[in-house]
Amino acid sequence: MINQQQKDEIDQLRQTVSSTRRPTVAALEEILYDPFPILDHGFIRVIDYMGDDGAIVQAARVSYGRGTKKTTEDQGLINYLMRHRHSTPFEMCEIKFHVKVPIFVARQWLRHRTANVNEYSARYSILDREFYIPAPEQLSAQSTHNRQGRHALLSGEEAQRVLEILKQDANQCYDHYEEMLNETESGEQVNPDNKGLARELARMNLPTNCYTQFYWKIDLHNFLHFLSLRADHHAQYEIKVYADELVNILKLWVPLVYKAFERYRLGGVFLSKEGWGVVKSLLKDHQFSAVDQEASGLSKGEWAEFMALFSRP
Amino acid sequence: MINQQQKDEIDQLRQTVSSTRRPTVAALEEILYDPFPILDHGFIRVIDYMGDDGAIVQAARVSYGRGTKKTTEDQGLINYLMRHRHSTPFEMCEIKFHVKVPIFVARQWLRHRTANVNEYSARYSILDREFYIPAPEQLSAQSTHNRQGRHALLSGEEAQRVLEILKQDANQCYDHYEEMLNETESGEQVNPDNKGLARELARMNLPTNCYTQFYWKIDLHNFLHFLSLRADHHAQYEIKVYADELVNILKLWVPLVYKAFERYRLGGVFLSKEGWGVVKSLLKDHQFSAVDQEASGLSKGEWAEFMALFSRP
Amino acid sequence: MINQQQKDEIDQLRQTVSSTRRPTVAALEEILYDPFPILDHGFIRVIDYMGDDGAIVQAARVSYGRGTKKTTEDQGLINYLMRHRHSTPFEMCEIKFHVKVPIFVARQWLRHRTANVNEYSARYSILDREFYIPAPEQLSAQSTHNRQGRHALLSGEEAQRVLEILKQDANQCYDHYEEMLNETESGEQVNPDNKGLARELARMNLPTNCYTQFYWKIDLHNFLHFLSLRADHHAQYEIKVYADELVNILKLWVPLVYKAFERYRLGGVFLSKEGWGVVKSLLKDHQFSAVDQEASGLSKGEWAEFMALFSRP
Amino acid sequence: MINQQQKDEIDQLRQTVSSTRRPTVAALEEILYDPFPILDHGFIRVIDYMGDDGAIVQAARVSYGRGTKKTTEDQGLINYLMRHRHSTPFEMCEIKFHVKVPIFVARQWLRHRTANVNEYSARYSILDREFYIPAPEQLSAQSTHNRQGRHALLSGEEAQRVLEILKQDANQCYDHYEEMLNETESGEQVNPDNKGLARELARMNLPTNCYTQFYWKIDLHNFLHFLSLRADHHAQYEIKVYADELVNILKLWVPLVYKAFERYRLGGVFLSKEGWGVVKSLLKDHQFSAVDQEASGLSKGEWAEFMALFSRP
Repeated sequence: MINQQQKDEIDQLRQTVSSTRRPTVAALEEILYDPFPILDHGFIRVIDYMGDDGAIVQAARVSYGRGTKKTTEDQGLINYLMRHRHSTPFEMCEIKFHVKVPIFVARQWLRHRTANVNEYSARYSILDREFYIPAPEQLSAQSTHNRQGRHALLSGEEAQRVLEILKQDANQCYDHYEEMLNETESGEQVNPDNKGLARELARMNLPTNCYTQFYWKIDLHNFLHFLSLRADHHAQYEIKVYADELVNILKLWVPLVYKAFERYRLGGVFLSKEGWGVVKSLLKDHQFSAVDQEASGLSKGEWAEFMALFSRP
Repeated sequence: MINQQQKDEIDQLRQTVSSTRRPTVAALEEILYDPFPILDHGFIRVIDYMGDDGAIVQAARVSYGRGTKKTTEDQGLINYLMRHRHSTPFEMCEIKFHVKVPIFVARQWLRHRTANVNEYSARYSILDREFYIPAPEQLSAQSTHNRQGRHALLSGEEAQRVLEILKQDANQCYDHYEEMLNETESGEQVNPDNKGLARELARMNLPTNCYTQFYWKIDLHNFLHFLSLRADHHAQYEIKVYADELVNILKLWVPLVYKAFERYRLGGVFLSKEGWGVVKSLLKDHQFSAVDQEASGLSKGEWAEFMALFSRP
Repeated sequence: MINQQQKDEIDQLRQTVSSTRRPTVAALEEILYDPFPILDHGFIRVIDYMGDDGAIVQAARVSYGRGTKKTTEDQGLINYLMRHRHSTPFEMCEIKFHVKVPIFVARQWLRHRTANVNEYSARYSILDREFYIPAPEQLSAQSTHNRQGRHALLSGEEAQRVLEILKQDANQCYDHYEEMLNETESGEQVNPDNKGLARELARMNLPTNCYTQFYWKIDLHNFLHFLSLRADHHAQYEIKVYADELVNILKLWVPLVYKAFERYRLGGVFLSKEGWGVVKSLLKDHQFSAVDQEASGLSKGEWAEFMALFSRP
Repeated sequence: MINQQQKDEIDQLRQTVSSTRRPTVAALEEILYDPFPILDHGFIRVIDYMGDDGAIVQAARVSYGRGTKKTTEDQGLINYLMRHRHSTPFEMCEIKFHVKVPIFVARQWLRHRTANVNEYSARYSILDREFYIPAPEQLSAQSTHNRQGRHALLSGEEAQRVLEILKQDANQCYDHYEEMLNETESGEQVNPDNKGLARELARMNLPTNCYTQFYWKIDLHNFLHFLSLRADHHAQYEIKVYADELVNILKLWVPLVYKAFERYRLGGVFLSKEGWGVVKSLLKDHQFSAVDQEASGLSKGEWAEFMALFSRP
């Protein structure tokens, strides 16, 4: 995953400390550059960041001017912004990662167009002999009711055969990749009579469980959008494990935003007009006094907004 | 608003009919190029469009492949895409408008960055003597509880004074604009001894209720996002009247999408984790049998998703 | 590439003609929906378009107002816009394609983030047994001076072996894909005792020369940018053949824009400050020998590039 | 421009120093938060930044892999990336500003859609009594040959009258703004019998030389694009003065990028196919007279632009 030379470089980066007038986040500094292992050969590393919870508040207050300065507390303001989808203040923070993932995961990941990316180029360089082989407990059958889901685990025998295939094909394809390049991973020539196929061509023989890597930089608003899709239980397991780790990093970076995200996105519920109609019908005869604002966990403003929903036409 | 020369051009465009193999929408063809008047001098015109409800279904089926081809009906598929925020198929449709709005409305409008815009340039050309003067029933006081809202109407006398100020200042600024340019709206020189100030400078004297115009092209996904913000009751009246007309046009263009939009966006309800907790508490002792799937207006799939919400941790 | 059912659908689409008030382009209508074959199994089809040369002029004239209306002719105005990189009027046109490409080409293609995309999903559906196998005259060695280029052709024997590897590995991986899915391309079960691995997992065994397909919609400005990079001689052959066909389609769609594109982008020359200094020096004394690389301020690589401009056709 | 309270806040921010493992740029830390005055009431302040020259090299090396690591020096690599328009590594740096500009300048500025923005909202808050009044040496007549340019200075008398108009109208509009709001800048009520017009309405009376302010965050690639357009001599003076100051800040932040930008963008020359044909012809016979405008294939305007290149410094 990370070789000794890379480990040394990371150690050196981590030991270089400068002074800055910029806002810093101690919990994120603590993990800066360190790889978090994911799957069998993948990782996530935080490479850089800009801004913190305070940067969102600062930007929001430029928009809303002098008026709100004294009265609103930071968590309340961030909750308000998240609840009302005022997204521009969240764009004022930025984070940069180094990510190593199987190609088929990278293909999903990079469909998010609002990030900056530099990916390892197999036109220039030779890919490593590293392939994602699922753990046996991930080898599930196709879901019968959800076309993009997994269902029951395969039996031991069937699973065994799958693992055998994946390992064998990956290694054979990689052996042939080296043969076509006429160059092994360690730089040796395979056949002195051959020229070696161009890298941009030879790479086409590698399967999509082969690992790639990229730098990925994204603003906080688009990062939350990515997380709400990819840390969701509908996401494919192999990308969700990355997203789950990214949520942990979010919590370290901007704890107030994390709380709002948990409250309004991860834990929030969206109902259609008809769905809300059902709730209203069910609640028609019920006593509202069963719950009041204080017991609800809602702020006064949220409670007022919530109650107003019941009188919507 | 529209002068005789422009009317003639529009008539000519409307009479030019070609044959095409592309999908067409009869209801939109009917209104193509025609201005819909908004406010006192503004308008919206549909200039061109690409795609229809079918284009969304077509694109979705590329993603989901052969499997869904036969079974899913178009409205059901579009509802599913909207409900699950699968936004890319909606990006496959595009619409282009010609819009005339006061500058302060254009400033809000053009903050939406995901559209293509060509605006009239006051560096090149001279702006018309057209200013937005609100109707008396729009002259409201500042809301006391919502910093960006309006409240009670001004009294007749106060309103009268406001209208007097707006008209007088606009006209005086425009008179001075002509004087600085040394050129009247009709092209006459004001003072034979003067050179006339550059247009890019003279325009700075005009107030933001002066009208501007632009071509605006946007894909359907981003158009829906614009509408969900600007046709909302929190939007400023002067942009909401444009958005309301755009919603009417949406209904003509992609009626199936309009229905889904009405169901899941305009009429939908978003609840925080805590808000949903309140609903669950209230419904704890209630009889679910008061409403069933058929009476609910929800499809079977939606009903299942809705019921599943109650057992979420 | 295109099966009989698809052919029938295309024929039906091509026979459906409607009338429209929108601008149409006869030469593009002529080829609408028809597949242009590329590589061994790929294709490009135009699915829809919005606007023509006139739409650019129309949008530009909104920006520049009444002033330019009479005097400027369309080609001249389009040239001016292109030369001065006034890009927004070109964004007023839009085109939509259906594209079939090998996965490693799709990976390059979809790095262009300013387009709308719906790709075939191998989570939902089973991929076809179609792989890109290069023609023997494309089997070149790695360039020794350009890390991302190709050089001399491989010998017949080495080429033969490469083709053998590519075909064998692709077919073996696909056989195993079917075995893991427990379902053949034609829908038959492989082993009655097996459940079949989920599609989202099984697909990871397929190499990146496997074909995928997507709908791709892009505005003209970003389309030109794509073409200037991918129809360039630095582009990998396997994407350049698509871009070359797209340039032909551009020429049919917006012939005036094509002429300007050819003049200012494909045929244009960019000189650094120093490069241009050389031209000026040369022209001063009318003697090539008056400047050489060392005196020029150019690096050796830049000097080589500069000199190469003189032998460009 | 900056009041005492803001000065105190800035001083406090500047005195807060933390330690960080992130890359820092000493020259930028030196000026962090400090306002650079522009025009009569405007300013630019750097609020935060991410990355330095090294971050570009780091990202490029992920793309190009192990191969280039040892041999290429940083300036050479950055030059190469800039020359070949490999833009993604430049996207790996980000900078955030606080900007105060007249509204008509903000309107140009915010047409660049690839940045993140939070602007002061005149729906929420009351704008300050600050207007841009040009210095007398900026009061130029409309250019006769360039529709968006300025030409000869106005005479003293005409200039005097322009200044008189701008000052008078701005102040009168602002007086009426306060009267309509029924609240002065310092918070006093104007008329005890009045309610005061909503802020979102009253603001429409202010002219576009009124100042606004915003936070503006942009990645380095898009920042360079902004600068190449707005620091260009075709840009309106009132935005160019901001861009010129931003170029100075660029030089402090990423000096290697600045050098490449100066070499390939600010100082670079773009020739059309025909323009370059002329250069080649001239160099062939070493005689200027060998080609003239008519024989060149260039229009008169293009010929003039081409000849002007020879007298560029």
